[in-house]
Amino acid sequence: MNILVRESSPKDMPQVLDLIKELAVFENSLIEVEVTEEILIQDGFGEDPLFTCFIAEVNKEIVGMALIYYRFSTWKGRVIHMEDLIVKEKMRNMGVGKALYSKVIAYAYEKKVKRIEWAVLDWNEGAIRFYENSGAKVMKNWYITQMEESGIKNYIATL
Amino acid sequence: MNILVRESSPKDMPQVLDLIKELAVFENSLIEVEVTEEILIQDGFGEDPLFTCFIAEVNKEIVGMALIYYRFSTWKGRVIHMEDLIVKEKMRNMGVGKALYSKVIAYAYEKKVKRIEWAVLDWNEGAIRFYENSGAKVMKNWYITQMEESGIKNYIATL
Repeated sequence: MNILVRESSPKDMPQVLDLIKELAVFENSLIEVEVTEEILIQDGFGEDPLFTCFIAEVNKEIVGMALIYYRFSTWKGRVIHMEDLIVKEKMRNMGVGKALYSKVIAYAYEKKVKRIEWAVLDWNEGAIRFYENSGAKVMKNWYITQMEESGIKNYIATL
Repeated sequence: MNILVRESSPKDMPQVLDLIKELAVFENSLIEVEVTEEILIQDGFGEDPLFTCFIAEVNKEIVGMALIYYRFSTWKGRVIHMEDLIVKEKMRNMGVGKALYSKVIAYAYEKKVKRIEWAVLDWNEGAIRFYENSGAKVMKNWYITQMEESGIKNYIATL
């Protein structure tokens, strides 16, 4: 099977959105997806792009994607964050995820960043094992914390 | 006590670096700090800034800082990440942290982002309580995962 990994272009965004939604359906969270094709195109390919997206193709079909962007660590400087790595369900365990993962790491190496960071769900033992075997460190002493739009509005009202 | 919170300028970076190092010393990790004043100035105030830094002043002394940047959520679009919120040890529990936190939330509100995200150490019960009381959600089902420079190099060698 020939897997081609390449940087995405605006015209790939409908299929990238399909991948995002497929994963959200799997997580029973489709209603949470507020992103649209227009937002992906505008934020990813405008004057000041917010992300870089790699896609994996098999027989010219887009079967996976990895979306990354820079973050800034006050200890390490410019680092890369991998926001999502998604493989179509019917294409799992065929090397697509590994190809995308390798592309992200090769990109980080090329850009000379000091770190790649991402998050993994605690129940996803297969992924955790894969990441640890690849040389990543899974840290269990941090909690990700989020204030959503409604929380922001409520907090502002108290100021 | 009068706390002034304002956006930082390049000339504040030496004191911002002092705050970063003070925290690193507290965490026994000073050796991990590879960032320099030059990197802070270049990455924060160049053509394509990687972060925005707010500082808190009391009597013209810089006593705290909050460093933020945009991230891209594939569900929510442009969101804000708070990388660090540091208050000088001698100035703790005097409202400096709250003033910086409020500034970050007001900024997120002004920029109309759908979420602010940050990470908190699991043993930091005081901070966790403060964040939850302010309307944030502390999530315990994600592990932050990192591949450091040496891990990147080792992985590349296997490709």
